[in-house]
Amino acid sequence: MAMPPTIGVFDSGFGGLTVLRALAARLPQAQFAFLGDTARLPYGSKSRRTIARYAAESAQFLVREQGAEFLVIACNTASALALDAIQDAVPVPVLGVIEPGAEAARAASRTGDVLVIATDATVQSHAYAAACQARGLHGIEKACPLLVPLVEEGWTNHPVTAEVIRIYLEELNAEAAAKGLNADTLVLGCTHYPLLRPLIEKAVPAGMRVIDSAEAAAEAAVRLVNGRANGPTGTPAFPPALRCFATDSVDKFERLGSAFLGRPTGKVELVDLGG
Amino acid sequence: MAMPPTIGVFDSGFGGLTVLRALAARLPQAQFAFLGDTARLPYGSKSRRTIARYAAESAQFLVREQGAEFLVIACNTASALALDAIQDAVPVPVLGVIEPGAEAARAASRTGDVLVIATDATVQSHAYAAACQARGLHGIEKACPLLVPLVEEGWTNHPVTAEVIRIYLEELNAEAAAKGLNADTLVLGCTHYPLLRPLIEKAVPAGMRVIDSAEAAAEAAVRLVNGRANGPTGTPAFPPALRCFATDSVDKFERLGSAFLGRPTGKVELVDLGG
Repeated sequence: MAMPPTIGVFDSGFGGLTVLRALAARLPQAQFAFLGDTARLPYGSKSRRTIARYAAESAQFLVREQGAEFLVIACNTASALALDAIQDAVPVPVLGVIEPGAEAARAASRTGDVLVIATDATVQSHAYAAACQARGLHGIEKACPLLVPLVEEGWTNHPVTAEVIRIYLEELNAEAAAKGLNADTLVLGCTHYPLLRPLIEKAVPAGMRVIDSAEAAAEAAVRLVNGRANGPTGTPAFPPALRCFATDSVDKFERLGSAFLGRPTGKVELVDLGG
Repeated sequence: MAMPPTIGVFDSGFGGLTVLRALAARLPQAQFAFLGDTARLPYGSKSRRTIARYAAESAQFLVREQGAEFLVIACNTASALALDAIQDAVPVPVLGVIEPGAEAARAASRTGDVLVIATDATVQSHAYAAACQARGLHGIEKACPLLVPLVEEGWTNHPVTAEVIRIYLEELNAEAAAKGLNADTLVLGCTHYPLLRPLIEKAVPAGMRVIDSAEAAAEAAVRLVNGRANGPTGTPAFPPALRCFATDSVDKFERLGSAFLGRPTGKVELVDLGG
């Protein structure tokens, strides 16, 4: 019997725990190491060069010190701006969240017109629009900067959040209609948004498919891991073995992280990656 | 006639432009240099040592390179955690926003029970509670983490924002009442909140005084400048001479800053303070 694979999951914060949750549900026999670079977030306001350096250092920690054999970049900003730099920095397969999200949209959409909601930084990178275009889709992106703070306030099932989602989607649908598009698919392009999925499902027009890029990335990672490991290996650890690391704000990580992960994060270990 | 004084104003972001606006209205003859350390925000998630280093470097830029003769720290987090370090780093008078806010609350409150709304980081520092206690007041602080994102989304006169303010103030008043307190004063302990003052004034109980720490800090700075300069000096520049600097995100600063400043920021100059 082969050893269970070790999978490293990286985010600038702890939103990427939604990706880890989706991964752990699909790979119960795997071991996971999650790193949130909380001391240096938000990546979104920093230059591409700085983000690439931070992300590469974080990836090297997961591979060299935690023995990760696969890396999932559960951070839209780092996936958009630094995937190449991370792939250059470590000798293991690296997967981001944007390509799988766009691929799932391609499989779901009949009209080829796709809506994407994300943070300001992800939208400004236009990474989803480019990934859609590469698949013959027309992607329209909208920044929804209030949604992350609403999730972090714990208002995931709150009337205010429902109203904010309604306003954002109304604006986005109006923009798509004004361009003569017939969108039938909505991509959740931020790792915080899966916690809002019930409210978002209620707010979208009837028949619109909602694609969660966290789920899509997890499915792509499972294919990658099973392909390399010749099928699922080892006996299931129950629950999957997990160590969480953060570069700062360990208390906030432990306090909020369980809602993202779907179970307690356990003790989050503080690591210092330097300035 | 003496030269008009040069006043340096510092914030981690651009919210401190509300303090600059209040200063410029009171000191039209002064020259101002504003620095937003936007590359390294938010300070709130960083350690005291790191904040002190960043704030000291920023203060030195304003004094050494821009000739500031007075410094106003228009940043609640830096005022709470690094005022001593800044005073040690530069040879000019330095004023924060917290002590003036608490002093204005002392002058306004009859019951001695004071409510304070601020960001999570400012509340966790308990700097306002301590400044209130030093004046014989009882200060109750509440973190309102959705208000800054709502201001930055431009929803300063929006029904969603009114509802969020109503919820926060209801929770805060209930907490005060449960402690047997009779609060009659509310301190706005964040430089973004003056943009919400009209909505906040509508939401507070009848008779409650609203204290803006940006206004209070500006009044304290005017007393300091006039005391040192033997009364207002020079002829009014109209509008006051102003240079704005930022360490990153110059576009966002220019786009959003005018709402805080009450007039266009002009060209924002990018500076590099390192790491």
